[in-house]
Amino acid sequence: MYEDIKKRVFRQNEELVKRGLVTLTWGNASAIMREKGLVCIKPSGVPYEDMTADDMVIVDMEGNVVEGRYRPSSDTPTHLYLYKVFADIGGIVHTHSSNAVAWAQAGRSIPAYGTTHADAFYGDVPCSRSLRAEEVKTDYEYNTGAVIAETFKGKDHNAVPAVLVKNHGPFTWGATVEKAVENAVTLEEVAKTAYLTEGIDRGAARVDGYLLDKHYFRKHGKGAYYGQKK
Amino acid sequence: MYEDIKKRVFRQNEELVKRGLVTLTWGNASAIMREKGLVCIKPSGVPYEDMTADDMVIVDMEGNVVEGRYRPSSDTPTHLYLYKVFADIGGIVHTHSSNAVAWAQAGRSIPAYGTTHADAFYGDVPCSRSLRAEEVKTDYEYNTGAVIAETFKGKDHNAVPAVLVKNHGPFTWGATVEKAVENAVTLEEVAKTAYLTEGIDRGAARVDGYLLDKHYFRKHGKGAYYGQKK
Amino acid sequence: MYEDIKKRVFRQNEELVKRGLVTLTWGNASAIMREKGLVCIKPSGVPYEDMTADDMVIVDMEGNVVEGRYRPSSDTPTHLYLYKVFADIGGIVHTHSSNAVAWAQAGRSIPAYGTTHADAFYGDVPCSRSLRAEEVKTDYEYNTGAVIAETFKGKDHNAVPAVLVKNHGPFTWGATVEKAVENAVTLEEVAKTAYLTEGIDRGAARVDGYLLDKHYFRKHGKGAYYGQKK
Amino acid sequence: MYEDIKKRVFRQNEELVKRGLVTLTWGNASAIMREKGLVCIKPSGVPYEDMTADDMVIVDMEGNVVEGRYRPSSDTPTHLYLYKVFADIGGIVHTHSSNAVAWAQAGRSIPAYGTTHADAFYGDVPCSRSLRAEEVKTDYEYNTGAVIAETFKGKDHNAVPAVLVKNHGPFTWGATVEKAVENAVTLEEVAKTAYLTEGIDRGAARVDGYLLDKHYFRKHGKGAYYGQKK
Repeated sequence: MYEDIKKRVFRQNEELVKRGLVTLTWGNASAIMREKGLVCIKPSGVPYEDMTADDMVIVDMEGNVVEGRYRPSSDTPTHLYLYKVFADIGGIVHTHSSNAVAWAQAGRSIPAYGTTHADAFYGDVPCSRSLRAEEVKTDYEYNTGAVIAETFKGKDHNAVPAVLVKNHGPFTWGATVEKAVENAVTLEEVAKTAYLTEGIDRGAARVDGYLLDKHYFRKHGKGAYYGQKK
Repeated sequence: MYEDIKKRVFRQNEELVKRGLVTLTWGNASAIMREKGLVCIKPSGVPYEDMTADDMVIVDMEGNVVEGRYRPSSDTPTHLYLYKVFADIGGIVHTHSSNAVAWAQAGRSIPAYGTTHADAFYGDVPCSRSLRAEEVKTDYEYNTGAVIAETFKGKDHNAVPAVLVKNHGPFTWGATVEKAVENAVTLEEVAKTAYLTEGIDRGAARVDGYLLDKHYFRKHGKGAYYGQKK
Repeated sequence: MYEDIKKRVFRQNEELVKRGLVTLTWGNASAIMREKGLVCIKPSGVPYEDMTADDMVIVDMEGNVVEGRYRPSSDTPTHLYLYKVFADIGGIVHTHSSNAVAWAQAGRSIPAYGTTHADAFYGDVPCSRSLRAEEVKTDYEYNTGAVIAETFKGKDHNAVPAVLVKNHGPFTWGATVEKAVENAVTLEEVAKTAYLTEGIDRGAARVDGYLLDKHYFRKHGKGAYYGQKK
Repeated sequence: MYEDIKKRVFRQNEELVKRGLVTLTWGNASAIMREKGLVCIKPSGVPYEDMTADDMVIVDMEGNVVEGRYRPSSDTPTHLYLYKVFADIGGIVHTHSSNAVAWAQAGRSIPAYGTTHADAFYGDVPCSRSLRAEEVKTDYEYNTGAVIAETFKGKDHNAVPAVLVKNHGPFTWGATVEKAVENAVTLEEVAKTAYLTEGIDRGAARVDGYLLDKHYFRKHGKGAYYGQKK
C-alpha cells in the first residue's frame, strides 16, 4: 500500500543526496496524506546505498508506525508538529547542508540580499531561539517543532517556507515534498551567496523592498507570471 | 522550423547547468536571427530534466510568440532590449551563478585583478545602479535592459561583454550564444578568484594597464595571436 | 589469505577518494585483526588507479610485513601505536582533507558549534601540540602516534574519535574501518562548517552543553534511539 | 611520428581538466625530448572536446613547428625558456587554477604552513615580481620565462618545482610531464588550504623547519622512504 507516496518520498530523499545537501544519513524528507491523517517519511539512519522506496515508513499523526519494517526518522515528531500547525503544507525537508548549518551555528537569520532569495523567500530566513535545557532533555524533537512554530508566530509560513534551528540546521516545507526539496536547494544557495556577499562587503544592504516584492510576487500569488500557466 | 537555432539555444541552456552556473530553472540563454528579426529563447520555469530543443520559443522583437507551445522566459524583455541597443551581438545569457551574484548583492564591480580577467574583459565588470521603485513596478524586465544599457553608455559593450545587475545577478553576451555562455563561465570564475584575492589581501591592486592590454589584445582584435587562424 | 579484510580495507581507501577526502596518494585506512595481532593497511605511494584489494599489506604489531608485495604506508607506525593505546578500536584513517588540514595548520582545535558536530564528536576535536625537533628527526611516525595518545591522556578516545596533528592533518578511528571512514567524512564537514560559522560571526559561541549531550547520546551509548535496533 | 609523447602530453592535458585545474582552454602541459631537442605541447585555444592526441604540436627549441597542423600554445616561448634554464626538467604545466591564481593576483608567495606543502615543496612557493611594461609589450611570453628564471636565481628549482607569475597564475614542472601535473594538483590544494588557514588564524605561523625537512626528505632524495623502491 501507499506505493506512490513511498516512491515520491524516496525519490526526494535521493534528490537531497544528489543535490549535495545530505551527507551520510543526515537528512530526511516526508510527505503527508491529509485525507488519511498519515505521513510517509524516511527510516532512521539507514544508509542511502541500501535504501529502496519500500523502506519508507508510514506513521499516523501520533507517530505510530502504520506500515514499514523500519523505525521512522528520529526527527519524525518535528515533522508531525509542523504538519499540525502549518495545516496547508504537504511536504517537509530537514538537512545539514553546509552553508545553512553555518548560519544556524552563528545563530543569525539569513538577510534577503537579492532576487535569488526573493524568488523563494519573502524576507529574511529566520533563525530560531535556542531551545532551553528542559526542552532538549524531554521531547526534544517535538519541542524542535514547537520552537519553529514559535518563530513563525504571527508570520506567514508560506511566505518564507524555511527556518534555521539554532546550532542545528535548516527545515523547509512546501505544498508538496518536491516543493519542500526545491526550497531546501534554494535555501542552501541563498545561504552560500549571503556568506560570499558579506565577505565582499561586511556592510552590504538588504535588497530594496520593492525589488523583493517584485520578485516574490512575479513567482507567487495571483499576479504571478513566471513559469507556465497551470 | 528554426530547428538549428533551437538546438543550439537548447544545448547552451544545458551547458549552463552542466557548468554549474544554473540551479533549478534560474537562468536563460538566447540567440537572435538578425535578418529575420526573431529571437530564440528558453521557456519560462520549465524543469531542465523535461526540456527538449523543441520547447525553445521563437519571439519577435516585441516579444510576441511566433512559434512554440510555451511562454518565453520572463526575462525576454531584457534580452530584446539588449539586442536592440547592442546591435552587433548574437547571443545573451543570464544566470544566478553564486560568485557573480555575491558581487551583485554587494553592489560592487569586479576589479580586474589578473590575466584570467583580462583575457575576456577589458577592465572591471561593472555593477549597475539600483533600479528605482517605479522602474521595478512597471515594465521591470524592460527596465532591467535599460539600466544595463545605461551602465554601458559611452563604453564599448564588446570590450566588457558582461554586467552585474545590482542585487540581482549577471548578464553576458557575445557574437553568438556559444560565446555568451563562454563569457558567463569566465565571469563566474573571475568573480570567484576576485573574492579569494581580496580574502588573501584586502588591499590587492588591479592588474597593470599594460598587462591588461596585452592579454586582452592577444586574444581580441586585429593583432590577436591566441588560438588558431580562422 | 586475509582476503576479506583486504577487500574491506581497499574499499574504504577507495571511499576516501570518492568522498573527496584524499587527493593523489595522501591518505590511508587500516583495520586490525585483534585476535591475530595483525593489521591490514594500504601500501605506500601507490596510485589509486593501479591499486587492487590484493595490494593491501598485512603487518604484525611491530610493522613487519607478513603478507604483500608492497611496502606498507609510511604512516604504519602511527597506526600501530594507536592500535596499542586505544585497545578497543578496529580501524584508523588518515587524510589530508582540505578543511581539517586548515585547522591543523592554524593549530586550533575545532570548536563544537552545533549538532552536526555533536552527533559524532562529544566536544571539541583537539589539535595536538607541535612535535619537538628530536621527535621528528627520529621515529617520526611512531612519535606522531605518541603525541596523539598524549592529546587524549585522561580523555575518552571513543567520545571524540578524531584528532588534528598540528601542521599536519587529521586522524580518525572507530570500532571498524568503515566507522573510521565515516568519522573522517564527518570531521571534514564539521571543519568546513566551523570555518564558515566563524566567517559569519567571529564571536560565535559553542553549542549548549545540554544540546551537545542530547545529540551525542541519542546516537551513542545505552539510551541511543537514532537509527535501527541492532 | 612522436606518437607516444603526443599521447602522454594529450593525456596530461586532459588530466588537468579532469582534476578541475583547467576551465575552457586556460592551460597547457608540455614534455621535452632532450636528446632530439624537441618539445611536444598542446595547440593554442582548441576546445578540449574536439582535441585528440594527434593534435599535439611538436616544436624545436626556437619554437618552429616541426610537426602538427595547429599553432602551438601561445605560452610556448615560456615553456622553451624554462626548458633551457632548468636543464634537467622533463615536463611543464601552466594553469589558471582558482586558488593559485588568487595568490598570484594578491602578489603573495604561498607560505609553507604544513606537511601537505612540505611533501612537494621545500619552502614557500614564490610569487614573481611584476613584469615591466617593456617586458610585456615585446616578447611577453619569452619574458615570462625570464622572470620565472629570475625568481629562482640562486635557488634550487627542483626543491620548489612551482611558481606564481604575478597577476597571472601558476607554472609547475618536474622530471616528467606526469610529475609536473602532479605538482600542479598539489599546488592548487596547497593554495586552497593556505587560504583557509589564514581565514582561521590571520597570524598562523609557518611549519617548523625540522618538520618541513622531514616531510620533504622522506619523499625526495637519497634517504627517501615514502612510496615503493624503484
